[in-house]
Amino acid sequence: MEILLEFFNRFIAQVQSPTLAFLIAGMVIAAFNSKLRIPDAIYQFCVFMLLMRIGLKGGMAIRDANIVEMLLPAVFSAILGIGIVLLGSITFARLPGIKKDDAFATLGLFGAVSGSTLAAGLMMLEGAGVFYEAWVPALYPFMDIPALVTAIVLANLYMSKEKGGAGAKVAIWPIIKDCLQGAALTVLIMGVVLGLITKPEKVFEGFFDPLFSGFLSVLMLILGIEAYKHLKDLAKVAHWYVAYAFVGPIVHGLMGFGLGYVAHLLVGLSPGGVIMLAVIAASNSDISGPPTIRAGIPTANPSAYIGTSTGLGTPVAIAVCIPLFLALGQMVFGF
Amino acid sequence: MEILLEFFNRFIAQVQSPTLAFLIAGMVIAAFNSKLRIPDAIYQFCVFMLLMRIGLKGGMAIRDANIVEMLLPAVFSAILGIGIVLLGSITFARLPGIKKDDAFATLGLFGAVSGSTLAAGLMMLEGAGVFYEAWVPALYPFMDIPALVTAIVLANLYMSKEKGGAGAKVAIWPIIKDCLQGAALTVLIMGVVLGLITKPEKVFEGFFDPLFSGFLSVLMLILGIEAYKHLKDLAKVAHWYVAYAFVGPIVHGLMGFGLGYVAHLLVGLSPGGVIMLAVIAASNSDISGPPTIRAGIPTANPSAYIGTSTGLGTPVAIAVCIPLFLALGQMVFGF
Amino acid sequence: MEILLEFFNRFIAQVQSPTLAFLIAGMVIAAFNSKLRIPDAIYQFCVFMLLMRIGLKGGMAIRDANIVEMLLPAVFSAILGIGIVLLGSITFARLPGIKKDDAFATLGLFGAVSGSTLAAGLMMLEGAGVFYEAWVPALYPFMDIPALVTAIVLANLYMSKEKGGAGAKVAIWPIIKDCLQGAALTVLIMGVVLGLITKPEKVFEGFFDPLFSGFLSVLMLILGIEAYKHLKDLAKVAHWYVAYAFVGPIVHGLMGFGLGYVAHLLVGLSPGGVIMLAVIAASNSDISGPPTIRAGIPTANPSAYIGTSTGLGTPVAIAVCIPLFLALGQMVFGF
Repeated sequence: MEILLEFFNRFIAQVQSPTLAFLIAGMVIAAFNSKLRIPDAIYQFCVFMLLMRIGLKGGMAIRDANIVEMLLPAVFSAILGIGIVLLGSITFARLPGIKKDDAFATLGLFGAVSGSTLAAGLMMLEGAGVFYEAWVPALYPFMDIPALVTAIVLANLYMSKEKGGAGAKVAIWPIIKDCLQGAALTVLIMGVVLGLITKPEKVFEGFFDPLFSGFLSVLMLILGIEAYKHLKDLAKVAHWYVAYAFVGPIVHGLMGFGLGYVAHLLVGLSPGGVIMLAVIAASNSDISGPPTIRAGIPTANPSAYIGTSTGLGTPVAIAVCIPLFLALGQMVFGF
Repeated sequence: MEILLEFFNRFIAQVQSPTLAFLIAGMVIAAFNSKLRIPDAIYQFCVFMLLMRIGLKGGMAIRDANIVEMLLPAVFSAILGIGIVLLGSITFARLPGIKKDDAFATLGLFGAVSGSTLAAGLMMLEGAGVFYEAWVPALYPFMDIPALVTAIVLANLYMSKEKGGAGAKVAIWPIIKDCLQGAALTVLIMGVVLGLITKPEKVFEGFFDPLFSGFLSVLMLILGIEAYKHLKDLAKVAHWYVAYAFVGPIVHGLMGFGLGYVAHLLVGLSPGGVIMLAVIAASNSDISGPPTIRAGIPTANPSAYIGTSTGLGTPVAIAVCIPLFLALGQMVFGF
Repeated sequence: MEILLEFFNRFIAQVQSPTLAFLIAGMVIAAFNSKLRIPDAIYQFCVFMLLMRIGLKGGMAIRDANIVEMLLPAVFSAILGIGIVLLGSITFARLPGIKKDDAFATLGLFGAVSGSTLAAGLMMLEGAGVFYEAWVPALYPFMDIPALVTAIVLANLYMSKEKGGAGAKVAIWPIIKDCLQGAALTVLIMGVVLGLITKPEKVFEGFFDPLFSGFLSVLMLILGIEAYKHLKDLAKVAHWYVAYAFVGPIVHGLMGFGLGYVAHLLVGLSPGGVIMLAVIAASNSDISGPPTIRAGIPTANPSAYIGTSTGLGTPVAIAVCIPLFLALGQMVFGF
């Protein structure tokens, strides 16, 4: 009982942080029909600033890091990305009233990773003074790409079977290329490379780092407004999508926490690293994923997969899962 | 004589500030037909940054403030908002060649409040080291909404009388809702609430506060360019609009200063608070007001009311009234 | 031999700077077909921020400077602007397969000046701790305008001769006005004037100066992406354009360095000033120049002149010429 209470207190302390407050504020003002709109150009610049800062910081820190440490967590990330989609395909996708292609599209997004959730998670860890390995943000593509590829391949296999086809081959390389060319992964990878091979310390310390928390709060506000707008889409689709958006991120995050704990025991992944693996697993794609899914599963209904992911999945990942797994980490590792 | 000279010196010192310099620079480059345009997305982001900073600062400071102090100034603000419109309706609106609906639309904007002028006024007070109560920016809606409601109600009463109607009822709640949903009031109120109930100190001190004076100067440049563009509109309407744009803000500001002084004597409103009440009264709406007016008084001519307010009223409020009432306050309160 | 090696080492050290790294990164991600786009509003704001900072800094420093010192360098700048166009008209424009109007348009851009290259050059000097005269950025218009005027006049003389005309008169004043009204020169001149006659120290130190290196790196990324996109245009035109884009900036920079050295001997222009005169001469216009050229030489093919200048000339000026002339300056002046 006392443990539950302590857990609850830690959880509440995280919810009061400005990052979450701006997310909730965005949902509230959208609910009140406010005419406030943050221009799309500012949204894109926020995303650029956050991922560039995360990438640069990672790149600069990786210089002195032992990259071999990253191997097992990277493999676990890929297993999580594929596993989340497979788990969903034998549970969520078989529920009554769920169209298969809509289901695979949704599963792909929930297996993939969100740059904003990643940024919010890192901010929360840094605010709480919890150490994490510098290369943790670089796990992003190792989970993101396998999830999207698995979902698109499964959807296409299913559809060609439906048509009575003998199982048409799905080209995997174009999907991977599409992921890597997306804005989010481009900026993240570019940041890591620039941090690794050039000397961006001055511009990092004078620009990208000090503006990080500010642009994150602006982005949270935008995500809140967007989430509320997409919630309406969910009224048009089966109620199971709502249930999945609540349960999915928590289950996926627990899977991430579990595999992270294994990595902690086997190769000494830090507590902060375990928490971030859980957060990345809990997150769902909101920037790069949707266009890739739209191209790969053109018959799926965007109201279903974008509504579920942007409307509910992202707020749940940020407002529930980040404080939840930080609190869980603090309990498990005792700090 | 000596008093006038001292007054003039204080006035000149304020005019040299960068805030005003950027406003004037904007008008000058527009007059030279420069092709420089600050994109609309940047304009919207400037307004967001300024009002969010003002709101957050107010909200954080209100935590420890005695909110009851705010009661009388809030009532005075509402009296000013309604009074400015009524005063204009028996003077300006009766001048020859002035269409009634254009007049009410203009009066509504001049009774309402400008976020940019509010920001410039606070900047000027902070620059001069003058204390003001933390809740002063929160007076904005108490003056803004009554002014717009009064103008729209009067215009609709007039028009229904013209049509021989028996005085159709005007729904007031939709006008109030429209004001509150506007971008400016949304950001300001959201900032106050976030400052009050969350802990935004870090993001305030690392982002919103240090960027305040910079974004204000960019906004002043944009307002200067806009003002020059709208000046042309004024050539098409009666000259009385030009006279009103010059005389109105000064008269309204003096009304605000007078009521502020009464509040100083009755409930101890600080000199900075008195000056800000004058500045808010002198200001005219440039962001949220025009769309509300357009919806509420659809027959009015935007060239008349936007030209008068954005083209002349705003520059007069910022470049003349802010230094004027700061100088007046320094004289009256002797600091 | 040892001198060459030392020169090469200094050169390499400059290439590793983040400014150049972002330029190259932009070209690389564009080559990989990344979907990352920095919105146009952000691009315009970057240019505004950089030129405003350069202008303000120059204006504030000029207050105490001996402006007469600027006279000879300003005359040399005009000579360079005109000389670069004339030199090209008797060499590049006479090559086989080069259309005369395309050639004059290209020469005008290469004689004109780039705000981004100017910003990158100043950043590099400040990073290396090299002193330069405060008024050096103010040389911009003295080279920019004569170059564009000369190119447009020569093109029009040529075309009227072609048509058998007796040499129609070209109005020069409208071209000069067009240059001065361009966004880049407006911001630069406005910044200088504001720095000179107002007190913008607070907003300079709190906003424009600290954000300088950050916005410069964002701008370099955009220029890199743009350069790659325009490189394709070059495939459609004669190969001589490619050769000119490589050789031109280096030759023009050497001309600038030479005249700068003369000014060093005659009126004591500082080593930093000599290097900047070379950089300005090496640069080619990428913001204001193209629209002026399009209006002045409407028959010229934009693929040729914009492709040559934005696609190749700018990267060569920034990535080759700035480190080259900084290294040359360090060798010649021994610091």
